[in-house]
Formats: sequence, structure tokens, C-alpha cells
Amino acid sequence: MIRVAIAGASGYTGFELIRILMQHPEARLTTITSRAQLGQRLDSFYPALKGHCGLVFQEPDPAILTRDADVVFTALPHQAAMDTVPALLDRGVKVVDLSADYRFRDPAVYEAWYQPHKTPELSARAVYGLPEAYRDEIRRAPLVGNPGCYPTSIILGAAPLLRNALIRPETLIADSKSGVSGAGRGATLAVHFCEVNEGFKAYKVGDHRHTPEIEQELGRLAGKPVTINFTPHLVPMSRGILSTVYATLEDGATPERVDEAFESFYGDAPFVRLCEKGAMPSTLQVRGSNYCDICWRVDPRTGRVIVVSVIDNLTRGASGQAVCNMNLMCGLAETAGLLAPPWQP
Amino acid sequence: MIRVAIAGASGYTGFELIRILMQHPEARLTTITSRAQLGQRLDSFYPALKGHCGLVFQEPDPAILTRDADVVFTALPHQAAMDTVPALLDRGVKVVDLSADYRFRDPAVYEAWYQPHKTPELSARAVYGLPEAYRDEIRRAPLVGNPGCYPTSIILGAAPLLRNALIRPETLIADSKSGVSGAGRGATLAVHFCEVNEGFKAYKVGDHRHTPEIEQELGRLAGKPVTINFTPHLVPMSRGILSTVYATLEDGATPERVDEAFESFYGDAPFVRLCEKGAMPSTLQVRGSNYCDICWRVDPRTGRVIVVSVIDNLTRGASGQAVCNMNLMCGLAETAGLLAPPWQP
Amino acid sequence: MIRVAIAGASGYTGFELIRILMQHPEARLTTITSRAQLGQRLDSFYPALKGHCGLVFQEPDPAILTRDADVVFTALPHQAAMDTVPALLDRGVKVVDLSADYRFRDPAVYEAWYQPHKTPELSARAVYGLPEAYRDEIRRAPLVGNPGCYPTSIILGAAPLLRNALIRPETLIADSKSGVSGAGRGATLAVHFCEVNEGFKAYKVGDHRHTPEIEQELGRLAGKPVTINFTPHLVPMSRGILSTVYATLEDGATPERVDEAFESFYGDAPFVRLCEKGAMPSTLQVRGSNYCDICWRVDPRTGRVIVVSVIDNLTRGASGQAVCNMNLMCGLAETAGLLAPPWQP
Amino acid sequence: MIRVAIAGASGYTGFELIRILMQHPEARLTTITSRAQLGQRLDSFYPALKGHCGLVFQEPDPAILTRDADVVFTALPHQAAMDTVPALLDRGVKVVDLSADYRFRDPAVYEAWYQPHKTPELSARAVYGLPEAYRDEIRRAPLVGNPGCYPTSIILGAAPLLRNALIRPETLIADSKSGVSGAGRGATLAVHFCEVNEGFKAYKVGDHRHTPEIEQELGRLAGKPVTINFTPHLVPMSRGILSTVYATLEDGATPERVDEAFESFYGDAPFVRLCEKGAMPSTLQVRGSNYCDICWRVDPRTGRVIVVSVIDNLTRGASGQAVCNMNLMCGLAETAGLLAPPWQP
Repeated sequence: MIRVAIAGASGYTGFELIRILMQHPEARLTTITSRAQLGQRLDSFYPALKGHCGLVFQEPDPAILTRDADVVFTALPHQAAMDTVPALLDRGVKVVDLSADYRFRDPAVYEAWYQPHKTPELSARAVYGLPEAYRDEIRRAPLVGNPGCYPTSIILGAAPLLRNALIRPETLIADSKSGVSGAGRGATLAVHFCEVNEGFKAYKVGDHRHTPEIEQELGRLAGKPVTINFTPHLVPMSRGILSTVYATLEDGATPERVDEAFESFYGDAPFVRLCEKGAMPSTLQVRGSNYCDICWRVDPRTGRVIVVSVIDNLTRGASGQAVCNMNLMCGLAETAGLLAPPWQP
Repeated sequence: MIRVAIAGASGYTGFELIRILMQHPEARLTTITSRAQLGQRLDSFYPALKGHCGLVFQEPDPAILTRDADVVFTALPHQAAMDTVPALLDRGVKVVDLSADYRFRDPAVYEAWYQPHKTPELSARAVYGLPEAYRDEIRRAPLVGNPGCYPTSIILGAAPLLRNALIRPETLIADSKSGVSGAGRGATLAVHFCEVNEGFKAYKVGDHRHTPEIEQELGRLAGKPVTINFTPHLVPMSRGILSTVYATLEDGATPERVDEAFESFYGDAPFVRLCEKGAMPSTLQVRGSNYCDICWRVDPRTGRVIVVSVIDNLTRGASGQAVCNMNLMCGLAETAGLLAPPWQP
Repeated sequence: MIRVAIAGASGYTGFELIRILMQHPEARLTTITSRAQLGQRLDSFYPALKGHCGLVFQEPDPAILTRDADVVFTALPHQAAMDTVPALLDRGVKVVDLSADYRFRDPAVYEAWYQPHKTPELSARAVYGLPEAYRDEIRRAPLVGNPGCYPTSIILGAAPLLRNALIRPETLIADSKSGVSGAGRGATLAVHFCEVNEGFKAYKVGDHRHTPEIEQELGRLAGKPVTINFTPHLVPMSRGILSTVYATLEDGATPERVDEAFESFYGDAPFVRLCEKGAMPSTLQVRGSNYCDICWRVDPRTGRVIVVSVIDNLTRGASGQAVCNMNLMCGLAETAGLLAPPWQP
Repeated sequence: MIRVAIAGASGYTGFELIRILMQHPEARLTTITSRAQLGQRLDSFYPALKGHCGLVFQEPDPAILTRDADVVFTALPHQAAMDTVPALLDRGVKVVDLSADYRFRDPAVYEAWYQPHKTPELSARAVYGLPEAYRDEIRRAPLVGNPGCYPTSIILGAAPLLRNALIRPETLIADSKSGVSGAGRGATLAVHFCEVNEGFKAYKVGDHRHTPEIEQELGRLAGKPVTINFTPHLVPMSRGILSTVYATLEDGATPERVDEAFESFYGDAPFVRLCEKGAMPSTLQVRGSNYCDICWRVDPRTGRVIVVSVIDNLTRGASGQAVCNMNLMCGLAETAGLLAPPWQP
């Protein structure tokens, strides 16, 4: 059994990690930390877990986190992660970091969009935790930067097209829509029920921090720099992200070649499902699961391809993908603990 | 491995049965039937299940249902169930019926609220599938009438008080609130999103068919006939039932005795959780689980006790409880396949 | 034109007052105050109002509030209201107070449930602003204590029964359900979208502060003290309250006498609508309006009557009723500015 | 007073017309028809309207519709409209048609996307009822084809850019999101609460029938044919459309010129509001109103402009705009009856 600790376990991604790990046949949660909930029992803070777990939130101290752990998930805010991760690695555990701090190859990009980086050389060595793109590197990595929720949905939607040079990268536009849990568990007016209900809106148009992360990965797939428009929107629902990706097809990129690109790129991927012809995916059909469901249409009128991808932002967009990375890093089956069916309705 | 068939598998309770059975370590789903979806693949009808199940909906014929099954769940409309169940039993399988057809000891009560009963003697022999009340009988039963969703929440809330004669039965009032999935998957104006959203309402006040079922069981707990008011309401949410139960305390029924009654009645029950002092349960904390979470308050001003119980109407109120009954009928652990944590958020 | 000022205009009830007053043919909003939003333009704070109003939030100072006003609405927290209202009255304006500070005849009751009262003699002289019960007193009142949202729905549901001695007051139980706007615009975890969505719950069972207010008014209708159980619940929707009221009928209280009681009590009331026989009201059908829609059922099995009433908590439960009181206090038609149809869907 | 009849008054757009007309100072609703609800009282069908209207649904017969009307709104399905409108015009009334039947200048376009047109010459003479584009033509028109909901939001968002040649038309992409009421009041599985709740999805990607309508109008603004990608999505909310429009800027199209284009194009338009710098509009802020609120961002990284526009799909996207057209056709102020503030929350 792999022993697991979670730093920053009191938020939604923390709960989702706990939920998944409790069902994992080869992992055992031993330690949870939270500065805000220090000393509180988990099942008192989350009554949903009564009878499932007797753990108590402890101080987020590297010594505590590594005392009884082979892997540590850091579900901390940006910046707090890079204050903690190096000390964890020094103590010999593997780390899956759910913040943005270890997602960027080039620290200058991170610093342009976030803040100064304290461990840029470590960041350059971390592996971007998208299994469909970096499965082998993840298997050997001591530190994985777990992808952002929006980037996961967009990169998976565009990857087969870029890898096969079927689209013109400079025409890429990603219009994404997320449920409210993506904003975290903090109490702000923006997530007040009455402001969200019947209140669909866009936000951070043109300057959301997931933009450079998406561009980094799309650029690697394309083999050249990619600049995109990414527009996030807030949907009155708890979970789920749907991304609609637009791009102009290259000459010769027929519908058949587009189909083949998706089918071959995801032929053996257990967590990407290509929709039946004619079907459009709903966020509902992946809720609570690690799946990314994808469909696409070639529009002969405009010469564009439109890709629609759906994920659960807390599962595939955060904690499920993090557990998948742990599986790979620890030599387990990629799907271990992650094959419960989605929740309907 | 226990082989399982589901008759009427295309609705929400059908899906919930499938979802649970797919994670069950000792059961294997072999057969699904649905007249409406005959010949369709399950994973085409429910894209959420793609990659999980290659079954095809078959004709709801007893020969088909029992060909490769030890247990059959009948998730059919009232009346259709009693047309099917006897033939299933004749072929030697065990049956958990999710309709109302086999919930009533006294066929006259059924006939007064539903319609003529075709197999009244069989109904009288069926066991009411509430494990906390009839665990031993269920273990020996070939046919279990699975409780209604509202009755489950109300009976579990009132049982300790009636069993210990702490309340005056004639003062019982149950005010219940259900998510929309309780109305089934049929497309009607009443479940149109725009009619439900921002549209909380009561319905069938004074004449909902769950009333006699609740009264039957409360009467058995009290040892005498019980007549109640039961008022169901529709909540703009997908899942969950909360019941608020009111009753006047008998003389001498102190808060301490009330506490003791709940604690002793549910001391060993794996699926009833008594809330911490001061906490009030939300339907959210049991979503997707087989739990019933309960709290109570004694109001010294009025001499009443108020009990609040929450369940997931599709899990504890239908399919989870049905699987729990299957577990008992087949000699498995009561909790087999039913201990995944609730879904948050 | 009546000149109107609003103290504490930045919350949901403040917005609702503004919305209604903007459509009022005989009132003109001149002044809005808010300590939190001091100096901000209303239409910048609420972009919905762009083009409708150029007012700026001012300091909540009595001199400012009365400078250009005949009537002041105080939409302030409890306690803050009684710090402000006397100074407003001294300056000769009429006041409709939306807090609880002037709802209680007996200051001792207020003090038992809230805090010490600074102006108990003024409180005793204030009129409880429920037009159906106190229309004439309101017309002559300089100070009206505007009813709470839950009390409005419950008192209107029970009044005809108590006034006509058709029920036993000690058997009264009120089970109420409210949309989230009733909790105000403050950002707390309890109103986080993800906690509310799919999370129906009861709260403050047995000790909600609206209890003594309800009991005061039911007692006056009954002509003797009344003690009730009142249980509030939170519904995942923005607006609306539905109250389900239960009571045991007195001997001789036939269904016909119950019908007559409702019809005669509300014969001339413009804002109470009795539902058609067989219909059950939804909160949707009164949304955005000052209506209270009521239906009732006599249950011969239990000898109880069940009344269901629906209001919009922000309109009839707060700001619409406050404007109605202003109308009466100023000699206008009770319905002035309040007859726009409810919003559907 | 203008006398008004509504053909097909039982759906959501019908109700919205009724709601608006009841508050209109210069119009009087005299006649409503509905085949499905024939003979039923409006206030029985819509209890929200009790006390507001004693009308009864009549047969949708041109003689009945024109007996007491100066203007008829036809809120009928496509095809049914063209069966009715000519007979109405022959009887001398003005007609605002809310179907697609009279939105297309070129019948061939209509026939390519819908079905054969029975009165193509009439269609060619009808005026497209977007006041910001055709105010003068609408004033003189006997027949107005009221715009579709999606087209309204998209055309208003793109118009200033095309009129001023600031964008390359062939790069236009419109990603739109609509509340459920846009699907109408019919009971289908697609609008079942449990399928919509937590189930965000795209639909009719590449082939929604609003596409040629959008292209027709964008082409007229651009002065040349325009082909676009338009992707509609379904949002779990009742009302509201948000469209996110992307286009590549022409050389020389500076942010300042973009700002000026919006400000000059909408300088005198009462129902288009340009958001404050830095603000992003929510569908909530226009709910129940005839406003279209618009913001835009120029992204120097990609050379694109992103426009976000929000409307209420039932008001500005259908019935409010229809009443606005009636106002213009009848010589009233454009804003008559349409200036009630939006609903919050």
C-alpha cells in the first residue's frame, strides 16, 4: 500500500483527493494538513465523511507530511506550494503539486504571469502531469506539476490536431465554461448563490493565468510557439468544464484525417472517450469521473474544426488527474482507483 | 459472484442500480431489460457508461431475466411489477422489487390507495426491505418489497421514538422535500427546468400514495395503528430528500431518553449516522450514498420533538437500499459495494 | 410625489426597494445611504440599474436621510435600526423599518430573543406592518415595523383560521422553506453556490428569531397566547418562501367553514390570492410580486387542516410590503406601484 | 390605446408578451389564441396572472385575431406563421412575427435552412426587426420579422465593428450560451431538470438555423457576404443569453477606434448599454429587461477583439423586442412600456 499525505486538504480539491483515495485499492491516506482547520477532525469538518475517516487536520509542516507518506499531494495556493515542495522532495517522497508553481518549463513565463519563482531550476525539471502527453516521463518523475482544469480540457481537445499538423495554430480560440467549484471554497460575493444563479458571465477575458500554461503545451504539441485566445466563463452549476475549441484547418485536412487523428492519438488512453458520431457531450456525463469526453465537427462552410471537450473540473481537472499521476509515478495501473462510473443525474 | 438482472433499467433508479453494481465486489450485472430502449446499447443510451458496460437492453421477459441471474431487481411501474415478479420467483431467483406492489402486508390497504392486487397472498409474504427494521427477515426472504423514498426517510426518523413509546403517535406530522429525480425520467411539464427552477411547491397534499406505506411501518413500530399527515414538496435540485418530522412527546420523555433511543436503535446500523450535537444535516452530505443522516431537537416550549433526516432519494431511497437488501438476501456483508464516500460538492 | 430615502440601500432588500420605487407612479427616490458603499454610484454598484438612476450612496446620517424625504425606509441590521429611527421621526418623516427592532409590542419579548431595546416605548407604539391585519392603524402610523419574511407567509396562512377559532392554536406547526436571498448579500460559506446547490437543509430548528414575532401576531388573532413550532429551511433557489402550516381543527370546523373563513378574511385584500380548488401554489407564481397565494386542505383522516402559502421573500416578505405600508401611511392606493405581473419563468 | 392580439399565447414568449403589455401605458391586450389551450382562462393556465387578466384562449383564426386589434403578434411555430400572417395583413392590422418565417430577405436562404416558403414575396418585403439597425424602416413597416434570440445578441455585439470595417469578417466566430427557456415550454427529455442541472452542453454545432439569419445581417453591416461559425450551448438557468464573439482586427484597428465604434454606433440607442471599462456583464444584470449590455477587449497578443454581449432571451431576444417594434410601427416612443428595471437577484 502506498502511503499518502495531503497538504491543504480542506478545500474542494482536497476533499476530492480524499474521496478518491478512500476508494483506492492500493493507497492509504495517512496525513492531512490544513492551517485553517488545524486540530479539527475531518469528519466533523466534512460530515459527509463520518464513519469513513478519523484523521485530524495537522500543521502543514514537511516533517509531519513526510512522516508516514510515500507520496504527498500539495493542494496549496500558488506560492505556498513552492515554499513547501522542495523540503518534501528533500525528504525523499514523491510530490504531485496541484498549484501552478511547477507547471512551467520556462520560469520566465511563470514569472511574467504569476510572481518571482523561488526554485526555477526545480520547476524546469518537473514533469507536466498530463498522462496522455507525458505518460513515460511521469512514470520516472519525483515531482509532477498537475495541470490546471481549463488547460486539461483544452489541451486534450486540441492535441491530436496539433500533433498531426491539421490546423493552423495561430487560429486557435478556446472558449471555456466552468462550474463554480473551480473558484474554490472561499466565501466571496462572486460565488454567492444569488449572484451565480441565473448569472452566466465571462471573466478575466484575455488575461486568465491559464493562458500561458495552455500555450506552453499546445506549442510543444505543435513544435512551435502558439498564441491563443482563451475566454473562461462561469456556469451556474457546481462541477464541470466544457471547452469549445475553434481552429482553421490546414489545406488537405479532411474530415477523415481529423477523425483518424483523434482515434490514433487516444487509441489506448483509458480516460479519453471519443463521442459517437452525432452526439455532443454534456458535463453531466463525466461528473465525478476522470474522463475527458470529446467530439468534433468539421465545418465545410468555414473551413474550421470545432472541438468540444468536457471534464469534471475537480476530478479530471484536479484531483482525479493527480491520483492518476500518483499511479504512474508509483508503478501502479494508470486507472487504479479511478474507474467508478460517473454520477447520473 | 452473484449474477444480477435488472428489469426496467432505463430510468434513474435503473441507472443507479447499474452504477452501484459496477462497483460491487461480489456481484456481476448480466442482464438489463427495457421495453422502451429494446435493442439499444446501454453505453449509447447513457454515454456516461461508455467503456464500462457492453450490455444491450433486452425484452423484459422472465425467461430472459432469469437466464443468467441469481437476483433480479424489478424497477418497473406499479402493476407491471406484479405482472412479472411471480414468474421470476417461480424460476427460482430472488427478487427485490422497487415498485409499491410488494410493500403492503394488508392487500386491502394497497387496493385502497393503488389498484386491485393480482397476487395478494404473495404480497402478504414479502418482506419490507428496511434493513434497520427487518434485517433478519430480509436475510431469509425470496421477495423483498423495497421501501419508497419518502417512507425510508420518515420511518428512519421516527422509528426510535415510536419503538420506545416516547411520542404520541397521533401527533405525527411528516413534512418532506424531494429533489426532482424522484419524479422519474419521464418528460413532463412538471419537471421542465424552467418550471422547477425557482419554483418550490407542495403536491398531493393529503393524498400521496406513500402515506399508507409510512403508516403501516410506523404502526408496526408503535404496536398500534398510526395515522399521520404527510406532505411532499418538490425542491429545485436533482437528488436528495429531507424530512422534517414533528411529534408531541409523551410524559416523561426527556431529552436524554430521546438521545438514548436514537443511539440504541441505531447503535450497530452501518447506514444511519446520527449528527453531532448542534449540527443540522444537508442533503448534500449524503449525496450518492446509502446513508441516512439524522438529527433531532426537543423543544421545551411546545413539548415536541423535531427530527430531521436526509437521504439520497435514488441511493438510500431506492437503488442503494435495494442492493443492501440483495446483500442480506445473499449472505453478503450488508455494506458490500455501498461504502463509497458521498459526493461533495 | 412622495419623496423617499433608503437607509442601507446596498443589500438585496435595498435593491428591491429601489426597483419598486422606480416604477412607482407617485413616489420619487431622492436619497440612498450605505456605509459600505459610501461615495459609489448606484448604477456602478448595480450595473443592472445603468440608465435608471444617477444616485450616489451617502453617509447614513439622519440629516442626510431627511433632507429631501417624506418617508424613510430603514433597511439596516437589527440594533442599527433603533440607533437611527428615533432621530428620523424627530425630523418629521414617516418611517418604515425593515429590521426586527419595531415589530414587538412587548419589549421584553424582543429583549428575550434579540438584545436590550434602546427605545422600548417607541417600539410599543409602532404598528406591525401587515396590511391585511392592521390596514387602518398603518394609515395613521408614523412608524411601521415591517414584518419578517417568514412571519408574513405564516401569519397570512393561519390568520383566517385563528380569527374564526377553527383550529386549536396549541397544535400549530409551521414548516417554512426559503430561497437564499433571505440570508442577505453577505458572502459566507453558507451561501456559497456549491454548498447550497443540491444541499437542502433545515437551520435554527426551535430557536429562529422569527418565532416570537409569529407567536405575537398569531396570539393577537387568536385572542390568547400561542406557542408554535417553526422550522425554517434553505432552498437552492434565489427567491421565494413557501410555508406549510399544520393545525388540528376544532370540533365543528367543517371544510365549508374553513373555505368561508379564508374567503371572508381576504375578500377585499388586493395582495392575497386564494388558489383554485385543487391547485397548489408554487413560489414561481408570485416571483417579483407582492402577492401571497394560499391554498388549504382539510384532511378528514387526521382532523387537521394544512395550509400552504407562497410569497416572494424580497417583495412581499420585505420591500414590496414596505412600499405597500408607505402607500397606506401616505394616503395612496394600497396597490400603487405594486401591480406588475409576477415574473415567469 | 393600441389594441393588441397575440396568436400562440400559451408559451414562454406568449407569457412574456402578456406580462409586458399589461404594464404598457399605451397598449391594451384584447385577444389571445392558442389551439392547445382553447377555451381555458389565461389566469387559470398561468396562476401568476390571477387578478390581472380575464381573457380566455380562443381559436387562432384571423377573423378572431383581427376583430379587436390594431397589431397582432404571431408567436407561432415556423410554417404556422406563414399560414396566418398574410390573412392578418389582408385584414389591415400590423404584424410582428416572432417566428423565422419573415426574417429572410432572400427566400432561397430560408428554404435552404427551413422549408419551402409559401409567401416569398411577402418575406422579401418584411423588415428585420432590430431597431438599432432598421429603426426607420420598422416605423413604416406593416410586417416585421422579429429577430431570433441568438442573432440579436450576436449582431448587436458585432455590428459596430463591421459597420466600421474594423474586423476581418471571415474570422468571425460566435460562441453563444442560452438559458433553457429558449427551448420553449414543451416537455422533452432535453429540458428535464435533472438532465439540465449540472449538464452544460453544446448542441447543433455547425448547423443551427440561426446561422443564416446572423450571416444575413452581418453581411448587410459589412457590405459583403459573411460566413461565420456559430455554436449554441445550453446553460442550467431559466433566462439569459451570453454571446462571446471573436474576430481578427483589420490593420489599423486600434483599441481607441474600437471604443469609438461602439460609442458612436450606440450613442442614442436606449436599449444597448456599454459596460464600464473593466466590467464584464452577467446575464443577471439584464434579466427581465430589453437591454443588451456589451463589453469588449482588444487582445494585443493575438490581434483579436473579443466582444461579450448579454440579453434576456425572452425579453430582448423575443417579446420585449417585439413590443419595441410595435412601438415604432405605431408611432410610440421606442421605450414605451419597456423601462422597468431588470430583476435582481
